[in-house]
Amino acid sequence: MIQEQYILIDCGECTQLLLKRNHIKPGKIRHILISHLHGDHYFGLIGLLSSLHLYGRKSKLNLYGPPELLNIINSQLKASATKLIFELNFVPLDPGMHGTIFEHDNFTIQTFPLNHSITCHGFLIKEKPKQRKIIKDQLPENIRLQDIVTMKNGQNVYDENDNIIYHHKDYTLPPKRSLSYAYCSDTAYDPGIVKYIKSADLLYHESTFATDMAKRAALTYHSTSEEAARIAKDAGVGKLLLGHYSTRYKDLSILLEQARSVFKESYLSQEGETVEIND
Amino acid sequence: MIQEQYILIDCGECTQLLLKRNHIKPGKIRHILISHLHGDHYFGLIGLLSSLHLYGRKSKLNLYGPPELLNIINSQLKASATKLIFELNFVPLDPGMHGTIFEHDNFTIQTFPLNHSITCHGFLIKEKPKQRKIIKDQLPENIRLQDIVTMKNGQNVYDENDNIIYHHKDYTLPPKRSLSYAYCSDTAYDPGIVKYIKSADLLYHESTFATDMAKRAALTYHSTSEEAARIAKDAGVGKLLLGHYSTRYKDLSILLEQARSVFKESYLSQEGETVEIND
Repeated sequence: MIQEQYILIDCGECTQLLLKRNHIKPGKIRHILISHLHGDHYFGLIGLLSSLHLYGRKSKLNLYGPPELLNIINSQLKASATKLIFELNFVPLDPGMHGTIFEHDNFTIQTFPLNHSITCHGFLIKEKPKQRKIIKDQLPENIRLQDIVTMKNGQNVYDENDNIIYHHKDYTLPPKRSLSYAYCSDTAYDPGIVKYIKSADLLYHESTFATDMAKRAALTYHSTSEEAARIAKDAGVGKLLLGHYSTRYKDLSILLEQARSVFKESYLSQEGETVEIND
Repeated sequence: MIQEQYILIDCGECTQLLLKRNHIKPGKIRHILISHLHGDHYFGLIGLLSSLHLYGRKSKLNLYGPPELLNIINSQLKASATKLIFELNFVPLDPGMHGTIFEHDNFTIQTFPLNHSITCHGFLIKEKPKQRKIIKDQLPENIRLQDIVTMKNGQNVYDENDNIIYHHKDYTLPPKRSLSYAYCSDTAYDPGIVKYIKSADLLYHESTFATDMAKRAALTYHSTSEEAARIAKDAGVGKLLLGHYSTRYKDLSILLEQARSVFKESYLSQEGETVEIND
Protein backbone atom coordinates (compact mmCIF):
# COMPACT_ATOMS: atom_id res chain seq x y z
CA MET A 1 0.00 0.00 0.00
CA ILE A 2 1.26 3.46 -0.87
CA GLN A 3 -0.74 6.67 -0.45
CA GLU A 4 -3.79 4.57 0.46
CA GLN A 5 -3.51 2.73 -2.86
CA TYR A 6 -3.15 -1.04 -2.78
CA ILE A 7 -0.82 -2.54 -5.36
CA LEU A 8 -0.67 -6.29 -5.91
CA ILE A 9 2.54 -7.58 -7.46
CA ASP A 10 2.15 -11.01 -9.05
CA CYS A 11 -0.80 -13.24 -8.38
CA GLY A 12 -0.17 -16.98 -8.12
CA GLU A 13 -2.89 -19.57 -7.65
CA CYS A 14 -4.82 -19.17 -4.38
CA THR A 15 -3.85 -15.49 -4.02
CA GLN A 16 -7.52 -14.81 -3.20
CA LEU A 17 -7.25 -17.24 -0.32
CA LEU A 18 -4.08 -15.59 0.99
CA LEU A 19 -5.63 -12.12 0.75
CA LYS A 20 -8.60 -13.33 2.76
CA ARG A 21 -6.37 -15.05 5.31
CA ASN A 22 -4.46 -11.78 5.77
CA HIS A 23 -7.63 -9.67 5.97
CA ILE A 24 -6.90 -7.69 2.81
CA LYS A 25 -10.04 -6.82 0.89
CA PRO A 26 -9.46 -7.53 -2.82
CA GLY A 27 -11.79 -4.67 -3.71
CA LYS A 28 -9.19 -2.21 -2.41
CA ILE A 29 -6.58 -3.19 -5.00
CA ARG A 30 -6.04 -0.45 -7.59
CA HIS A 31 -3.08 -1.86 -9.52
CA ILE A 32 -2.00 -5.38 -10.35
CA LEU A 33 1.53 -5.84 -11.71
CA ILE A 34 2.40 -9.17 -13.33
CA SER A 35 6.15 -9.68 -13.72
CA HIS A 36 6.02 -12.61 -16.13
CA LEU A 37 3.85 -15.46 -17.35
CA HIS A 38 5.13 -18.40 -15.35
CA GLY A 39 2.16 -19.90 -13.56
CA ASP A 40 3.33 -19.28 -10.02
CA HIS A 41 3.17 -15.56 -10.80
CA TYR A 42 -0.25 -15.23 -12.42
CA PHE A 43 -2.48 -18.35 -12.33
CA GLY A 44 -4.56 -16.74 -9.58
CA LEU A 45 -5.28 -13.60 -11.60
CA ILE A 46 -8.30 -14.79 -13.59
CA GLY A 47 -9.94 -16.06 -10.39
CA LEU A 48 -9.33 -12.76 -8.64
CA LEU A 49 -10.74 -10.77 -11.58
CA SER A 50 -13.79 -13.06 -11.71
CA SER A 51 -14.42 -12.60 -7.99
CA LEU A 52 -14.13 -8.81 -8.25
CA HIS A 53 -16.70 -9.04 -11.05
CA LEU A 54 -19.05 -11.20 -8.99
CA TYR A 55 -18.67 -8.98 -5.94
CA GLY A 56 -19.77 -6.01 -8.04
CA ARG A 57 -16.59 -3.92 -8.27
CA LYS A 58 -17.26 -0.51 -9.74
CA SER A 59 -13.89 1.24 -9.86
CA LYS A 60 -11.28 0.89 -12.56
CA LEU A 61 -8.53 -1.68 -12.10
CA ASN A 62 -5.13 -1.13 -13.69
CA LEU A 63 -3.37 -4.28 -14.84
CA TYR A 64 0.21 -4.31 -16.11
CA GLY A 65 1.84 -7.35 -17.65
CA PRO A 66 3.23 -9.01 -20.78
CA PRO A 67 1.06 -8.39 -23.87
CA GLU A 68 -0.01 -12.07 -24.13
CA LEU A 69 -1.76 -11.75 -20.78
CA LEU A 70 -4.69 -9.84 -22.28
CA ASN A 71 -5.54 -12.63 -24.70
CA ILE A 72 -5.27 -15.23 -21.94
CA ILE A 73 -7.72 -13.28 -19.79
CA ASN A 74 -10.08 -12.45 -22.63
CA SER A 75 -10.30 -16.02 -23.88
CA GLN A 76 -11.30 -17.15 -20.40
CA LEU A 77 -13.85 -14.36 -19.98
CA LYS A 78 -15.27 -15.19 -23.41
CA ALA A 79 -15.54 -18.90 -22.61
CA SER A 80 -17.70 -18.10 -19.57
CA ALA A 81 -19.66 -15.41 -21.47
CA THR A 82 -18.50 -12.85 -18.90
CA LYS A 83 -18.30 -9.14 -19.61
CA LEU A 84 -16.54 -7.56 -16.64
CA ILE A 85 -18.73 -4.98 -14.92
CA PHE A 86 -15.72 -2.86 -14.02
CA GLU A 87 -13.14 -1.21 -16.27
CA LEU A 88 -10.00 -3.30 -16.65
CA ASN A 89 -7.29 -0.99 -17.93
CA PHE A 90 -4.61 -3.25 -19.34
CA VAL A 91 -1.16 -1.76 -19.85
CA PRO A 92 1.06 -4.10 -21.89
CA LEU A 93 4.69 -4.34 -20.82
CA ASP A 94 6.81 -4.99 -23.89
CA PRO A 95 10.01 -7.04 -23.71
CA GLY A 96 12.97 -4.94 -22.52
CA MET A 97 10.72 -2.04 -21.55
CA HIS A 98 11.89 0.39 -18.87
CA GLY A 99 10.30 3.57 -17.61
CA THR A 100 7.23 4.88 -15.83
CA ILE A 101 4.03 2.90 -16.30
CA PHE A 102 1.86 4.78 -13.80
CA GLU A 103 2.08 8.29 -12.43
CA HIS A 104 0.20 9.40 -9.34
CA ASP A 105 0.43 12.86 -7.78
CA ASN A 106 2.65 11.42 -5.10
CA PHE A 107 4.33 8.35 -6.54
CA THR A 108 5.26 6.52 -9.72
CA ILE A 109 5.40 2.89 -10.73
CA GLN A 110 8.32 2.08 -12.98
CA THR A 111 9.31 -1.10 -14.76
CA PHE A 112 12.68 -2.43 -15.88
CA PRO A 113 13.84 -5.68 -17.52
CA LEU A 114 14.94 -8.70 -15.52
CA ASN A 115 16.93 -11.62 -16.87
CA HIS A 116 14.80 -14.76 -16.87
CA SER A 117 14.04 -17.67 -19.17
CA ILE A 118 11.04 -15.78 -20.51
CA THR A 119 10.43 -12.03 -20.67
CA CYS A 120 10.26 -10.78 -17.11
CA HIS A 121 9.76 -7.33 -15.60
CA GLY A 122 10.99 -5.79 -12.38
CA PHE A 123 9.09 -2.98 -10.68
CA LEU A 124 10.02 0.12 -8.72
CA ILE A 125 7.39 1.95 -6.71
CA LYS A 126 8.76 5.32 -5.74
CA GLU A 127 7.41 8.33 -3.93
CA LYS A 128 7.84 11.62 -5.75
CA PRO A 129 9.97 14.33 -4.10
CA LYS A 130 8.06 15.63 -1.10
CA GLN A 131 7.45 19.22 -0.09
CA ARG A 132 9.82 21.01 2.30
CA LYS A 133 8.54 21.40 5.85
CA ILE A 134 7.52 24.91 6.92
CA ILE A 135 9.04 26.31 10.12
CA LYS A 136 5.92 28.06 11.35
CA ASP A 137 7.61 30.23 13.96
CA GLN A 138 9.92 31.76 11.38
CA LEU A 139 7.26 32.84 8.88
CA PRO A 140 6.82 36.62 8.35
CA GLU A 141 3.34 37.63 9.52
CA ASN A 142 2.16 39.12 6.26
CA ILE A 143 3.32 36.27 4.00
CA ARG A 144 0.78 35.04 1.44
CA LEU A 145 -0.43 31.42 1.29
CA GLN A 146 0.81 31.05 -2.27
CA ASP A 147 4.30 32.10 -1.20
CA ILE A 148 4.31 29.38 1.45
CA VAL A 149 3.46 26.83 -1.25
CA THR A 150 6.27 28.19 -3.42
CA MET A 151 8.78 27.80 -0.58
CA LYS A 152 7.50 24.31 0.26
CA ASN A 153 8.37 23.44 -3.33
CA GLY A 154 11.93 24.66 -2.77
CA GLN A 155 11.77 28.02 -4.50
CA ASN A 156 12.50 31.48 -3.14
CA VAL A 157 9.87 34.22 -3.03
CA TYR A 158 10.33 37.83 -4.18
CA ASP A 159 8.03 40.35 -2.51
CA GLU A 160 7.69 43.28 -4.94
CA ASN A 161 6.01 45.59 -2.44
CA ASP A 162 8.75 45.37 0.14
CA ASN A 163 11.47 44.50 -2.35
CA ILE A 164 12.51 41.54 -0.23
CA ILE A 165 13.59 38.03 -1.16
CA TYR A 166 12.40 35.29 1.13
CA HIS A 167 14.92 32.48 0.88
CA HIS A 168 13.07 29.18 1.22
CA LYS A 169 15.93 27.67 3.21
CA ASP A 170 15.33 30.25 5.95
CA TYR A 171 11.68 29.29 6.38
CA THR A 172 11.57 25.60 5.60
CA LEU A 173 13.34 22.40 6.52
CA PRO A 174 14.38 19.79 3.96
CA PRO A 175 11.57 17.44 2.92
CA LYS A 176 11.21 13.92 4.20
CA ARG A 177 12.99 11.37 2.05
CA SER A 178 11.05 9.87 -0.84
CA LEU A 179 10.76 6.19 -0.14
CA SER A 180 10.92 3.42 -2.70
CA TYR A 181 10.38 -0.31 -3.07
CA ALA A 182 12.01 -2.40 -5.79
CA TYR A 183 10.72 -5.83 -6.74
CA CYS A 184 12.87 -8.26 -8.68
CA SER A 185 10.98 -11.51 -9.16
CA ASP A 186 12.51 -14.37 -11.11
CA THR A 187 15.90 -13.35 -12.48
CA ALA A 188 19.41 -14.61 -12.97
CA TYR A 189 22.14 -12.57 -11.26
CA ASP A 190 22.40 -9.50 -13.45
CA PRO A 191 24.36 -6.37 -12.48
CA GLY A 192 22.45 -4.60 -15.26
CA ILE A 193 19.54 -4.39 -12.84
CA VAL A 194 21.47 -2.24 -10.36
CA LYS A 195 21.01 1.04 -12.20
CA TYR A 196 17.23 0.76 -12.04
CA ILE A 197 17.00 0.18 -8.31
CA LYS A 198 19.73 2.51 -6.96
CA SER A 199 19.19 3.44 -3.31
CA ALA A 200 15.79 1.80 -3.01
CA ASP A 201 14.75 1.66 0.62
CA LEU A 202 13.55 -1.90 0.29
CA LEU A 203 14.51 -4.44 -2.35
CA TYR A 204 12.78 -7.76 -2.84
CA HIS A 205 15.08 -9.98 -4.88
CA GLU A 206 14.52 -13.64 -5.55
CA SER A 207 17.01 -16.03 -3.98
CA THR A 208 16.04 -19.49 -5.14
CA PHE A 209 19.31 -21.24 -4.31
CA ALA A 210 22.25 -21.34 -1.91
CA THR A 211 25.77 -20.57 -3.12
CA ASP A 212 26.73 -24.18 -3.91
CA MET A 213 23.94 -24.22 -6.50
CA ALA A 214 25.20 -21.14 -8.37
CA LYS A 215 25.58 -23.08 -11.61
CA ARG A 216 22.06 -24.43 -11.42
CA ALA A 217 20.85 -20.91 -10.61
CA ALA A 218 22.48 -19.52 -13.76
CA LEU A 219 21.18 -22.41 -15.84
CA THR A 220 17.58 -21.86 -14.72
CA TYR A 221 17.81 -18.04 -14.74
CA HIS A 222 17.47 -17.81 -10.99
CA SER A 223 19.75 -16.33 -8.32
CA THR A 224 21.53 -17.47 -5.19
CA SER A 225 20.90 -15.48 -2.02
CA GLU A 226 24.53 -14.32 -2.16
CA GLU A 227 23.95 -12.96 -5.66
CA ALA A 228 20.80 -11.19 -4.50
CA ALA A 229 22.87 -9.63 -1.72
CA ARG A 230 25.51 -8.50 -4.20
CA ILE A 231 22.80 -6.69 -6.21
CA ALA A 232 21.51 -5.12 -2.99
CA LYS A 233 25.00 -3.99 -1.98
CA ASP A 234 25.90 -2.59 -5.41
CA ALA A 235 22.58 -0.72 -5.60
CA GLY A 236 23.08 0.67 -2.08
CA VAL A 237 19.58 -0.28 -0.98
CA GLY A 238 18.39 0.05 2.60
CA LYS A 239 17.19 -3.47 3.18
CA LEU A 240 17.01 -6.71 1.19
CA LEU A 241 14.09 -9.14 1.35
CA LEU A 242 14.89 -12.64 0.12
CA GLY A 243 12.24 -14.96 -1.33
CA HIS A 244 11.19 -17.54 -3.97
CA TYR A 245 13.11 -20.25 -2.14
CA SER A 246 13.59 -23.65 -3.73
CA THR A 247 11.54 -26.29 -1.91
CA ARG A 248 14.80 -28.19 -1.27
CA TYR A 249 15.56 -25.84 1.64
CA LYS A 250 13.54 -26.95 4.63
CA ASP A 251 15.76 -24.71 6.76
CA LEU A 252 16.25 -21.32 5.13
CA SER A 253 18.99 -20.11 7.46
CA ILE A 254 21.73 -21.06 4.98
CA LEU A 255 20.22 -18.64 2.46
CA LEU A 256 20.07 -15.88 5.05
CA GLU A 257 23.61 -16.45 6.30
CA GLN A 258 25.11 -16.42 2.82
CA ALA A 259 23.21 -13.23 1.93
CA ARG A 260 24.32 -11.52 5.16
CA SER A 261 27.94 -12.40 4.49
CA VAL A 262 27.68 -9.94 1.58
CA PHE A 263 24.96 -7.54 2.71
CA LYS A 264 24.15 -7.25 6.38
CA GLU A 265 20.62 -5.84 6.02
CA SER A 266 19.27 -9.04 4.45
CA TYR A 267 16.07 -10.67 5.68
CA LEU A 268 13.95 -13.70 4.82
CA SER A 269 10.49 -12.81 3.54
CA GLN A 270 7.66 -14.88 4.96
CA GLU A 271 4.14 -15.57 3.72
CA GLY A 272 1.66 -13.10 5.14
CA GLU A 273 4.31 -10.81 6.57
CA THR A 274 3.90 -7.02 6.53
CA VAL A 275 7.05 -4.99 5.97
CA GLU A 276 6.84 -1.25 6.54
CA ILE A 277 9.12 1.22 4.85
CA ASN A 278 9.71 4.21 7.04
CA ASP A 279 11.87 7.27 6.81
CA MET B 1 -11.57 -43.86 -8.07
CA ILE B 2 -12.86 -46.77 -10.13
CA GLN B 3 -10.88 -49.90 -10.98
CA GLU B 4 -7.78 -48.25 -9.49
CA GLN B 5 -8.17 -45.32 -11.89
CA TYR B 6 -8.50 -41.85 -10.41
CA ILE B 7 -10.93 -39.52 -12.17
CA LEU B 8 -11.07 -35.83 -11.29
CA ILE B 9 -14.34 -34.09 -12.14
CA ASP B 10 -13.99 -30.31 -12.39
CA CYS B 11 -10.99 -28.45 -11.06
CA GLY B 12 -11.60 -25.08 -9.41
CA GLU B 13 -8.84 -22.79 -8.14
CA CYS B 14 -6.78 -24.36 -5.32
CA THR B 15 -7.75 -27.93 -6.28
CA GLN B 16 -4.07 -28.82 -5.93
CA LEU B 17 -4.19 -27.61 -2.35
CA LEU B 18 -7.32 -29.66 -1.61
CA LEU B 19 -5.81 -32.79 -3.16
CA LYS B 20 -2.76 -32.37 -0.97
CA ARG B 21 -4.87 -31.73 2.12
CA ASN B 22 -6.78 -34.94 1.43
CA HIS B 23 -3.61 -36.94 0.71
CA ILE B 24 -4.49 -37.65 -2.92
CA LYS B 25 -1.42 -37.74 -5.14
CA PRO B 26 -2.18 -35.72 -8.31
CA GLY B 27 0.11 -38.04 -10.27
CA LYS B 28 -2.44 -40.83 -9.85
CA ILE B 29 -5.15 -39.00 -11.81
CA ARG B 30 -5.81 -40.62 -15.20
CA HIS B 31 -8.83 -38.62 -16.36
CA ILE B 32 -9.93 -35.04 -15.81
CA LEU B 33 -13.51 -34.14 -16.77
CA ILE B 34 -14.42 -30.46 -17.01
CA SER B 35 -18.17 -29.88 -17.03
CA HIS B 36 -18.13 -26.26 -18.23
CA LEU B 37 -16.00 -23.15 -18.39
CA HIS B 38 -17.19 -21.16 -15.41
CA GLY B 39 -14.15 -20.38 -13.33
CA ASP B 40 -15.16 -22.27 -10.21
CA HIS B 41 -15.06 -25.44 -12.30
CA TYR B 42 -11.69 -25.13 -14.06
CA PHE B 43 -9.45 -22.24 -12.93
CA GLY B 44 -7.27 -24.71 -11.03
CA LEU B 45 -6.67 -26.90 -14.08
CA ILE B 46 -3.72 -25.03 -15.62
CA GLY B 47 -1.95 -25.01 -12.26
CA LEU B 48 -2.50 -28.73 -11.81
CA LEU B 49 -1.22 -29.50 -15.32
CA SER B 50 1.84 -27.30 -14.72
CA SER B 51 2.61 -29.07 -11.47
CA LEU B 52 2.28 -32.50 -13.07
CA HIS B 53 4.74 -31.26 -15.69
CA LEU B 54 7.19 -29.97 -13.08
CA TYR B 55 6.91 -33.16 -11.03
CA GLY B 56 7.91 -35.16 -14.11
CA ARG B 57 4.72 -37.03 -14.98
CA LYS B 58 5.30 -39.66 -17.62
CA SER B 59 1.92 -41.27 -18.23
CA LYS B 60 -0.79 -39.99 -20.53
CA LEU B 61 -3.51 -37.80 -19.04
CA ASN B 62 -6.97 -37.76 -20.60
CA LEU B 63 -8.74 -34.41 -20.44
CA TYR B 64 -12.37 -33.96 -21.47
CA GLY B 65 -14.04 -30.57 -21.72
CA PRO B 66 -15.56 -27.89 -23.96
CA PRO B 67 -13.51 -27.33 -27.14
CA GLU B 68 -12.44 -23.80 -26.09
CA LEU B 69 -10.55 -25.29 -23.16
CA LEU B 70 -7.71 -26.50 -25.37
CA ASN B 71 -6.94 -23.01 -26.64
CA ILE B 72 -7.07 -21.61 -23.11
CA ILE B 73 -4.54 -24.18 -21.92
CA ASN B 74 -2.32 -23.91 -24.96
CA SER B 75 -2.12 -20.11 -24.82
CA GLN B 76 -0.97 -20.33 -21.20
CA LEU B 77 1.58 -23.06 -21.95
CA LYS B 78 2.87 -21.03 -24.89
CA ALA B 79 3.20 -17.86 -22.80
CA SER B 80 5.45 -19.71 -20.36
CA ALA B 81 7.32 -21.50 -23.17
CA THR B 82 6.24 -24.82 -21.67
CA LYS B 83 6.00 -28.03 -23.66
CA LEU B 84 4.36 -30.61 -21.41
CA ILE B 85 6.58 -33.62 -20.85
CA PHE B 86 3.59 -35.94 -20.68
CA GLU B 87 0.93 -36.66 -23.27
CA LEU B 88 -2.21 -34.60 -22.74
CA ASN B 89 -4.97 -36.32 -24.67
CA PHE B 90 -7.69 -33.71 -25.05
CA VAL B 91 -11.17 -34.95 -25.93
CA PRO B 92 -13.46 -32.04 -26.89
CA LEU B 93 -17.04 -32.25 -25.67
CA ASP B 94 -19.27 -30.53 -28.19
CA PRO B 95 -22.46 -28.73 -27.14
CA GLY B 96 -25.36 -31.14 -26.68
CA MET B 97 -23.12 -34.17 -26.95
CA HIS B 98 -24.17 -37.43 -25.32
CA GLY B 99 -22.55 -40.83 -25.38
CA THR B 100 -19.43 -42.68 -24.32
CA ILE B 101 -16.24 -40.63 -24.16
CA PHE B 102 -13.97 -43.27 -22.61
CA GLU B 103 -14.15 -47.02 -22.61
CA HIS B 104 -12.17 -49.19 -20.23
CA ASP B 105 -12.34 -52.99 -20.05
CA ASN B 106 -14.45 -52.66 -16.93
CA PHE B 107 -16.16 -49.28 -17.07
CA THR B 108 -17.22 -46.43 -19.33
CA ILE B 109 -17.38 -42.68 -18.92
CA GLN B 110 -20.40 -41.13 -20.60
CA THR B 111 -21.44 -37.53 -21.04
CA PHE B 112 -24.84 -35.91 -21.47
CA PRO B 113 -26.06 -32.30 -21.75
CA LEU B 114 -27.04 -30.22 -18.72
CA ASN B 115 -29.08 -27.03 -18.84
CA HIS B 116 -26.92 -24.09 -17.76
CA SER B 117 -26.25 -20.51 -18.88
CA ILE B 118 -23.31 -21.77 -20.93
CA THR B 119 -22.73 -25.19 -22.48
CA CYS B 120 -22.42 -27.66 -19.63
CA HIS B 121 -21.88 -31.42 -19.52
CA GLY B 122 -22.97 -34.04 -17.03
CA PHE B 123 -21.03 -37.27 -16.58
CA LEU B 124 -21.91 -40.87 -15.85
CA ILE B 125 -19.21 -43.30 -14.76
CA LYS B 126 -20.54 -46.80 -15.05
CA GLU B 127 -19.14 -50.25 -14.53
CA LYS B 128 -19.67 -52.65 -17.42
CA PRO B 129 -21.74 -55.80 -16.82
CA LYS B 130 -19.72 -58.10 -14.63
CA GLN B 131 -19.13 -61.84 -15.10
CA ARG B 132 -21.39 -64.40 -13.48
CA LYS B 133 -19.94 -66.12 -10.44
CA ILE B 134 -18.92 -69.78 -10.84
CA ILE B 135 -20.31 -72.29 -8.32
CA LYS B 136 -17.14 -74.35 -8.01
CA ASP B 137 -18.75 -77.35 -6.35
CA GLN B 138 -21.19 -77.82 -9.19
CA LEU B 139 -18.67 -77.84 -12.04
CA PRO B 140 -18.30 -81.11 -13.97
CA GLU B 141 -14.76 -82.48 -13.45
CA ASN B 142 -13.77 -82.62 -17.10
CA ILE B 143 -14.99 -79.14 -18.06
CA ARG B 144 -12.54 -77.00 -20.06
CA LEU B 145 -11.31 -73.60 -18.88
CA GLN B 146 -12.73 -71.90 -21.98
CA ASP B 147 -16.17 -73.34 -21.20
CA ILE B 148 -16.03 -71.82 -17.74
CA VAL B 149 -15.30 -68.42 -19.30
CA THR B 150 -18.22 -68.90 -21.66
CA MET B 151 -20.59 -69.64 -18.79
CA LYS B 152 -19.22 -66.70 -16.74
CA ASN B 153 -20.26 -64.55 -19.70
CA GLY B 154 -23.79 -65.92 -19.45
CA GLN B 155 -23.75 -68.37 -22.35
CA ASN B 156 -24.47 -72.10 -22.38
CA VAL B 157 -21.84 -74.65 -23.46
CA TYR B 158 -22.40 -77.53 -25.87
CA ASP B 159 -20.02 -80.47 -25.43
CA GLU B 160 -19.85 -82.25 -28.80
CA ASN B 161 -18.07 -85.34 -27.46
CA ASP B 162 -20.65 -86.14 -24.88
CA ASN B 163 -23.51 -84.43 -26.70
CA ILE B 164 -24.40 -82.52 -23.54
CA ILE B 165 -25.52 -78.92 -23.02
CA TYR B 166 -24.19 -77.23 -19.90
CA HIS B 167 -26.68 -74.54 -18.93
CA HIS B 168 -24.79 -71.60 -17.44
CA LYS B 169 -27.52 -71.00 -14.87
CA ASP B 170 -26.82 -74.42 -13.37
CA TYR B 171 -23.15 -73.66 -12.78
CA THR B 172 -23.04 -69.93 -12.10
CA LEU B 173 -24.71 -67.33 -9.94
CA PRO B 174 -25.85 -63.94 -11.27
CA PRO B 175 -23.06 -61.33 -11.48
CA LYS B 176 -22.61 -58.53 -8.97
CA ARG B 177 -24.47 -55.39 -9.90
CA SER B 178 -22.66 -52.87 -12.10
CA LEU B 179 -22.32 -49.69 -10.09
CA SER B 180 -22.57 -46.17 -11.44
CA TYR B 181 -22.02 -42.55 -10.42
CA ALA B 182 -23.75 -39.63 -12.12
CA TYR B 183 -22.47 -36.07 -11.79
CA CYS B 184 -24.69 -33.11 -12.62
CA SER B 185 -22.81 -29.90 -11.95
CA ASP B 186 -24.41 -26.54 -12.66
CA THR B 187 -27.86 -27.01 -14.16
CA ALA B 188 -31.39 -25.72 -14.01
CA TYR B 189 -34.05 -28.25 -13.07
CA ASP B 190 -34.41 -30.31 -16.22
CA PRO B 191 -36.36 -33.60 -16.40
CA GLY B 192 -34.57 -34.21 -19.71
CA ILE B 193 -31.56 -35.27 -17.63
CA VAL B 194 -33.40 -38.19 -16.05
CA LYS B 195 -33.04 -40.58 -19.01
CA TYR B 196 -29.25 -40.32 -18.89
CA ILE B 197 -28.87 -41.16 -15.22
CA LYS B 198 -31.55 -43.84 -14.72
CA SER B 199 -30.86 -46.05 -11.70
CA ALA B 200 -27.45 -44.58 -10.95
CA ASP B 201 -26.25 -45.80 -7.55
CA LEU B 202 -25.04 -42.34 -6.60
CA LEU B 203 -26.10 -39.02 -8.08
CA TYR B 204 -24.38 -35.73 -7.38
CA HIS B 205 -26.74 -32.94 -8.37
CA GLU B 206 -26.19 -29.27 -7.67
CA SER B 207 -28.60 -27.66 -5.24
CA THR B 208 -27.66 -24.01 -5.09
CA PHE B 209 -30.88 -22.71 -3.54
CA ALA B 210 -33.73 -23.52 -1.15
CA THR B 211 -37.29 -23.85 -2.43
CA ASP B 212 -38.26 -20.21 -1.81
CA MET B 213 -35.59 -19.19 -4.32
CA ALA B 214 -36.92 -21.39 -7.13
CA LYS B 215 -37.44 -18.39 -9.42
CA ARG B 216 -33.91 -17.17 -8.88
CA ALA B 217 -32.68 -20.73 -9.46
CA ALA B 218 -34.44 -20.88 -12.84
CA LEU B 219 -33.20 -17.41 -13.76
CA THR B 220 -29.57 -18.31 -13.06
CA TYR B 221 -29.84 -21.85 -14.47
CA HIS B 222 -29.33 -23.44 -11.08
CA SER B 223 -31.52 -25.82 -9.04
CA THR B 224 -33.15 -25.92 -5.65
CA SER B 225 -32.42 -28.93 -3.46
CA GLU B 226 -36.04 -30.00 -3.87
CA GLU B 227 -35.63 -29.98 -7.66
CA ALA B 228 -32.44 -32.01 -7.34
CA ALA B 229 -34.40 -34.50 -5.25
CA ARG B 230 -37.15 -34.68 -7.86
CA ILE B 231 -34.54 -35.59 -10.50
CA ALA B 232 -33.12 -38.22 -8.14
CA LYS B 233 -36.57 -39.68 -7.50
CA ASP B 234 -37.61 -39.72 -11.16
CA ALA B 235 -34.32 -41.37 -12.14
CA GLY B 236 -34.67 -43.93 -9.37
CA VAL B 237 -31.13 -43.43 -8.14
CA GLY B 238 -29.80 -45.04 -4.99
CA LYS B 239 -28.53 -41.97 -3.21
CA LEU B 240 -28.43 -38.23 -3.87
CA LEU B 241 -25.50 -36.00 -2.93
CA LEU B 242 -26.33 -32.30 -2.76
CA GLY B 243 -23.73 -29.59 -3.38
CA HIS B 244 -22.79 -26.20 -4.91
CA TYR B 245 -24.59 -24.37 -2.13
CA SER B 246 -25.12 -20.63 -2.34
CA THR B 247 -22.99 -18.82 0.23
CA ARG B 248 -26.20 -17.33 1.65
CA TYR B 249 -26.86 -20.58 3.52
CA LYS B 250 -24.72 -20.63 6.65
CA ASP B 251 -26.85 -23.53 7.87
CA LEU B 252 -27.44 -26.08 5.13
CA SER B 253 -30.07 -28.09 6.96
CA ILE B 254 -32.91 -26.33 5.13
CA LEU B 255 -31.52 -27.62 1.83
CA LEU B 256 -31.26 -31.14 3.22
CA GLU B 257 -34.75 -31.12 4.72
CA GLN B 258 -36.38 -29.87 1.55
CA ALA B 259 -34.56 -32.51 -0.53
CA ARG B 260 -35.53 -35.29 1.89
CA SER B 261 -39.18 -34.26 1.74
CA VAL B 262 -39.05 -35.48 -1.89
CA PHE B 263 -36.30 -38.10 -1.84
CA LYS B 264 -35.32 -39.70 1.43
CA GLU B 265 -31.84 -40.84 0.44
CA SER B 266 -30.53 -37.28 0.10
CA TYR B 267 -27.28 -36.19 1.73
CA LEU B 268 -25.19 -33.02 1.96
CA SER B 269 -21.79 -33.36 0.30
CA GLN B 270 -18.91 -31.93 2.28
CA GLU B 271 -15.44 -30.79 1.24
CA GLY B 272 -12.91 -33.58 1.55
CA GLU B 273 -15.52 -36.25 2.14
CA THR B 274 -15.13 -39.77 0.71
CA VAL B 275 -18.31 -41.48 -0.44
CA GLU B 276 -18.10 -45.17 -1.28
CA ILE B 277 -20.46 -46.87 -3.68
CA ASN B 278 -20.95 -50.49 -2.72
CA ASP B 279 -23.10 -53.28 -3.96
